[in-house]
Amino acid sequence: MKNLLDDIEEILLMGPGPSCVPPEVYRALSQKTLGHLDPYFLEIMEELKIMIRRIMNTANTLTLPISGTGSAGMEAAFVNLVEPGDPVLILLNGVFGVRMNEVAQRLGAQVEVLEFPWGTPVELQTAEKKIGRKSYQIIAMVQAETSTGVRNPVAEIGSLLKGSDSLYLVDTVTGLGGMEVRMDDWNIDVLYSGTQKCLSCPPGLAPVSFSQKAMQKLKSRKTKVPNWYLDLTLISEYWGQNRVYHHTAPVNMLYGLYQALLLILEEGPEKVFSRHREIHQALVQGLEELGLKMLVEEQFRLPMLNAVCVPEGVDELSVRKRLRSQFKIEIGGGLGPLAGKIWRIGLMGHTARKENVDRLMEALQEILKK
Amino acid sequence: MKNLLDDIEEILLMGPGPSCVPPEVYRALSQKTLGHLDPYFLEIMEELKIMIRRIMNTANTLTLPISGTGSAGMEAAFVNLVEPGDPVLILLNGVFGVRMNEVAQRLGAQVEVLEFPWGTPVELQTAEKKIGRKSYQIIAMVQAETSTGVRNPVAEIGSLLKGSDSLYLVDTVTGLGGMEVRMDDWNIDVLYSGTQKCLSCPPGLAPVSFSQKAMQKLKSRKTKVPNWYLDLTLISEYWGQNRVYHHTAPVNMLYGLYQALLLILEEGPEKVFSRHREIHQALVQGLEELGLKMLVEEQFRLPMLNAVCVPEGVDELSVRKRLRSQFKIEIGGGLGPLAGKIWRIGLMGHTARKENVDRLMEALQEILKK
Repeated sequence: MKNLLDDIEEILLMGPGPSCVPPEVYRALSQKTLGHLDPYFLEIMEELKIMIRRIMNTANTLTLPISGTGSAGMEAAFVNLVEPGDPVLILLNGVFGVRMNEVAQRLGAQVEVLEFPWGTPVELQTAEKKIGRKSYQIIAMVQAETSTGVRNPVAEIGSLLKGSDSLYLVDTVTGLGGMEVRMDDWNIDVLYSGTQKCLSCPPGLAPVSFSQKAMQKLKSRKTKVPNWYLDLTLISEYWGQNRVYHHTAPVNMLYGLYQALLLILEEGPEKVFSRHREIHQALVQGLEELGLKMLVEEQFRLPMLNAVCVPEGVDELSVRKRLRSQFKIEIGGGLGPLAGKIWRIGLMGHTARKENVDRLMEALQEILKK
Repeated sequence: MKNLLDDIEEILLMGPGPSCVPPEVYRALSQKTLGHLDPYFLEIMEELKIMIRRIMNTANTLTLPISGTGSAGMEAAFVNLVEPGDPVLILLNGVFGVRMNEVAQRLGAQVEVLEFPWGTPVELQTAEKKIGRKSYQIIAMVQAETSTGVRNPVAEIGSLLKGSDSLYLVDTVTGLGGMEVRMDDWNIDVLYSGTQKCLSCPPGLAPVSFSQKAMQKLKSRKTKVPNWYLDLTLISEYWGQNRVYHHTAPVNMLYGLYQALLLILEEGPEKVFSRHREIHQALVQGLEELGLKMLVEEQFRLPMLNAVCVPEGVDELSVRKRLRSQFKIEIGGGLGPLAGKIWRIGLMGHTARKENVDRLMEALQEILKK
């Protein structure tokens, strides 16, 4: 039988994720598998928890990687906290807010959605009014809307919620590792991410963290969590001191995450964030020199996800196909109402390097020239 | 910072999973990450589906790996099919039957359990009587009870269910790749496994397959699947022809599974199964020469999971600790009512080699000598 793995080409991953993976992380993935209860593996797990806490800026004990992708992190965040009938407010301005709505609805929450135009951020005063009118169990928002390239005001909404009874749930799948997230300072109660964006590890794990207040809600549930696999009361017994077997942890993926976090902490998170900002500036400048326009207003742009308007008369899909086939570069297309209208260019983690921007610019110049 | 990954020792994995990983699979894990919608990656996905079907002996279109561990496969099997109030029968004789009960209960099923003594198989006549008394929506059983080393009569129960309206759900987490599973011939409607047992790939994925009959039940649900992440109607749109983005597939883990399946198919499943049986015989003989007794009667023993009674006066934990620290071998302890009473010795996939049995025997001889 032909082995397709033998002919995998190296593609420059400049889409909305997965991002480029550093060689150290590939090496980590192929380290010898240990048992999920092996004493040395337990040491690695302990260090992993500490590193996730550091990058999330939280002291929360319940901080661990869920054995699934970023979307499993979202599912875990909601399924552990929602009981049927719970009022939930979602501040929505893109695909991942829509997904939150879908996840929460299926769990029987009474969901209200406050929607803002896609490509613009959640607007503070409008959100404040809505929040003031009712006591929500959960108020949820996406920090970095991967579908539009918009940065939402996570710290500011957190300030509004100081002292409130609501739980503040934030999706930082695309943000974590590429921009600041201060879970404790910003009053965030539930935070989740994914490995395949700015953490520069292949997809497969979802770091999550729950505050004491979120833990209280979890402990005071009237019903069991309707999902055994993602039940954090059980998972935390494995990741905590008791080491009670729950499921077999994805050992090699956890090696990969360990190495990926170590690289970020060694470079220094502040330096990593400014690298993202600088490379983002270089990209925007290059795109503008080509006559291309950004979807999002300058002040609300994410550094790691750049939504670029497709010029009139250009077939967006054929540009992406040519980038992939001729130049070995992947970029993303638009989703939902933005399908066909934008390209999404990722500068996540290990992808955020000047030579990658240069390579993309040369390719785009070649493809778009009249 | 110290990098703990630098000091990972190679441990001979002879526990209840994870099992030893062949070098080709480690290499596959560290191949260059492709995008989850990359055309070449889609080819790999297509081949993966074909290989899973071959090893499960099924023609089911809906056959794919779930992005989570074996337990996520169990959760996916139940959550897609159970609606509140559905009558479910679980034929139980170990930890993983208990887990099925827990998962199904949380989803609101009306679960009945028919329990058999742990260490013995599901008994056909008793099961037949129970099944004849009521129309169950789902009848569920574990093929290879990892907690006791017992093989359950999967084909025989399947015969009983021929023509019935019930869905037959089988857990083959520990069986698949180490013993025969004939999904279609045995009338199985839902089958799931995990990568870290006889498939010899690190933990992290759960191959699943749904029959047409199971798909019908899924399509005729009155309520949406109460789990967005594991909703097979959505996941199948990504793994099918439409390629609709659902979540970012765990690309590198899928490379690992691809390579692991390829190795089994190249060796030939029949040869792989007889290798398991032979190595199992060698292990049992060796254990008996040391004066040790097997928990399970000969005819019901699994080849890949061997439950061994701890001799009186021996502290089971200290034996395992010494095996791990002095001889770099991992074996497992008992779970539930068997905790402290048995060791569980895995001979799964790449672990099932004569030299591993020899190494364990020498170590045990040394440790157990008076």
